[in-house]
Amino acid sequence: MENFNFYSPTEFVFGRGRENESGKYVKKYGGSKVLIHYGGGSAVRSGLLDRVKASLDAEGISFAELGGVQPNPRDTLVYKGIELCRNEGVDFILAVGGGSVIDSAKAIAAGVLYDGDFWDFYSGRHVEKALPIGVVLTIAAAGSEGSGNSVITKEDGLLKRGTGSDALRSRFSVLDPELTQTLPAYQTACGATDIMAHVFERYFTNTREVEITDRLCEAVLLTMVKETPRVIADPDNYDARANIMWAGMVAHNGIVGVGRSQDWNSHGIEHELSALYDCAHGAGLAVIMPAWMEFVHSHDVMRFCQMATRVFGCQMNFEDPEVTALEGIRRFREFLHSIGMPINLAELGAREEDIPLLVEKLGLGEDGRTGGFVRLSSEDVREIYSIASRASL
Amino acid sequence: MENFNFYSPTEFVFGRGRENESGKYVKKYGGSKVLIHYGGGSAVRSGLLDRVKASLDAEGISFAELGGVQPNPRDTLVYKGIELCRNEGVDFILAVGGGSVIDSAKAIAAGVLYDGDFWDFYSGRHVEKALPIGVVLTIAAAGSEGSGNSVITKEDGLLKRGTGSDALRSRFSVLDPELTQTLPAYQTACGATDIMAHVFERYFTNTREVEITDRLCEAVLLTMVKETPRVIADPDNYDARANIMWAGMVAHNGIVGVGRSQDWNSHGIEHELSALYDCAHGAGLAVIMPAWMEFVHSHDVMRFCQMATRVFGCQMNFEDPEVTALEGIRRFREFLHSIGMPINLAELGAREEDIPLLVEKLGLGEDGRTGGFVRLSSEDVREIYSIASRASL
Repeated sequence: MENFNFYSPTEFVFGRGRENESGKYVKKYGGSKVLIHYGGGSAVRSGLLDRVKASLDAEGISFAELGGVQPNPRDTLVYKGIELCRNEGVDFILAVGGGSVIDSAKAIAAGVLYDGDFWDFYSGRHVEKALPIGVVLTIAAAGSEGSGNSVITKEDGLLKRGTGSDALRSRFSVLDPELTQTLPAYQTACGATDIMAHVFERYFTNTREVEITDRLCEAVLLTMVKETPRVIADPDNYDARANIMWAGMVAHNGIVGVGRSQDWNSHGIEHELSALYDCAHGAGLAVIMPAWMEFVHSHDVMRFCQMATRVFGCQMNFEDPEVTALEGIRRFREFLHSIGMPINLAELGAREEDIPLLVEKLGLGEDGRTGGFVRLSSEDVREIYSIASRASL
Repeated sequence: MENFNFYSPTEFVFGRGRENESGKYVKKYGGSKVLIHYGGGSAVRSGLLDRVKASLDAEGISFAELGGVQPNPRDTLVYKGIELCRNEGVDFILAVGGGSVIDSAKAIAAGVLYDGDFWDFYSGRHVEKALPIGVVLTIAAAGSEGSGNSVITKEDGLLKRGTGSDALRSRFSVLDPELTQTLPAYQTACGATDIMAHVFERYFTNTREVEITDRLCEAVLLTMVKETPRVIADPDNYDARANIMWAGMVAHNGIVGVGRSQDWNSHGIEHELSALYDCAHGAGLAVIMPAWMEFVHSHDVMRFCQMATRVFGCQMNFEDPEVTALEGIRRFREFLHSIGMPINLAELGAREEDIPLLVEKLGLGEDGRTGGFVRLSSEDVREIYSIASRASL
């Protein structure tokens, strides 16, 4: 096991109706003038925003508002948010939404306290300080409610880049599974895929002997394999929604990745898809992850056998382990298909002829390599996109 | 799933040599005058205390010292520590040791900022504030490095009582698995048993549909079943020590217990044993837990089958599930025996004729009941002690 620090100071406020306590927690964590940041109309139409505002009113906390966050949140709205916060004297940002809203809120929080261009933080500069953030989560997916990460897309060139800092971890995050019950099946499945991807990026490691982290990874994956089909079949299943929502936090606050090298190739390769086609991140991952697995499985057949047997219930083929490894990947793709995810580029709405452009935008250069499990070249990435193009059940 | 809050703000600093960063983290969390609190001579003899002091010196942080914490830490030393902190103007307490040292440090931290008798906090009063605490952990067992709990024994009458508050969570906890390599096998096994007990107290619940928490529980248990025999066989196995040390934190910071009712009967019943005989808490748990399981298993046979199949690798007997449930308990007791734990009162050094006294000290009264999974009467507890008395492989 490698040395590590683990720090997840967010207070998680979980369960039915807990969004009505938003004001109480903003006050507890020192907010007096809040920016409520949100996305489209669903938070308005559902009455969620009104309930959050009422809870702020009840604590005598004033607020400004900024809606309009898009999926794959844009730098343009971040600049607008920074200006608004400065003009209004905002001292706390409350993100009401999913990963895109939270990521946008984090960018604003860092930008308000920084003299330069906030995009510097998405170009390698470390975030040292940020306004405090709170979250009312509406989608189980990105795990941004428990992470210190944020991903923003630069509108000019559709450049999608991330940053990470403990300063960006929210002070409190309200997770009410009921808020996710109105999500369409497709978005629910995209979220579930993203959650599983956050685990797999950490599961595939070259570090030996990290049993506790392996087992925690598998705990989340087994939960997702059990609960996701249940919410697709019955969107109002509160308990299944609750298990998925909490699994989504556990998948990405760091606990399932400590003490080991990690990969993150699938995320890197997928980001170019969602940046170019503006498709859902989870849908892109559903296409890329099994393709990546097929491409790299021979690097560590036994690790793929572990996944196959422990997560997907395969019988181990002791005479030919590779059969088990590939069967695990096959079952994963089949699972993704069963919850309504695309399994190849065409189903995603992406075009095979764009592969050279996708590889170019990843920007590895001639000798560049990417990822932690297997270091991939541009040629390797091109092959993974090709596998993703011709994939079928 | 039930509503819950989860809050674990401690920064965990994990790995080889990290105790040399103690001073850096004391400074990060605002300490300028430290009380170093420790137990017997092993921290001195091993040179650990010197390394910690050197790291404080390097940051220009002054310190006072108070050693002598016993297993089942006493109120008498807590009073001494409170007085010392007040006289010396201590603003940060650094616990260097295991659960007993950390629990004693927490009691002192709460007591220094309180006008009354600190024992009030162990008699039902909530701890609202405490001096900040840091930890350098030397034993994987109690999980106190990541919890807000503390258990202290009142010397007058050997009354063992606990308290819990977020104010008692340490700011940082250094976990260096190498520090545990010198532990004798018996203490190592006691610690492992305590870790598994912390999970089982949460695993046995009447709340339905908490798959993610079940799976996280099983992740810790599976890790302990794999890694404990390895460190008993080879005390210097760093990776096995590391897995156990991190599992010990995960087992007790709350994450494996969220969203559900919990039990805690085994801890309650065991506390009277270690208070009366001053035996190791883990050894007492090894005797009590399987006895408790046998007594309550018919309350939820399928839950015991889940434990048996998922944790102890039993084949499910679909025609007679109770066979599987009992086989799981049998394997657990066999496992405890294999790592050198006592399995009945005699092996623990306790006497069957003391059972009435043990029941009386638990203080349930005539109509009192205890525990969350099955509400036990005094008569039930008496029967559990009796099962523990006659237990054999």
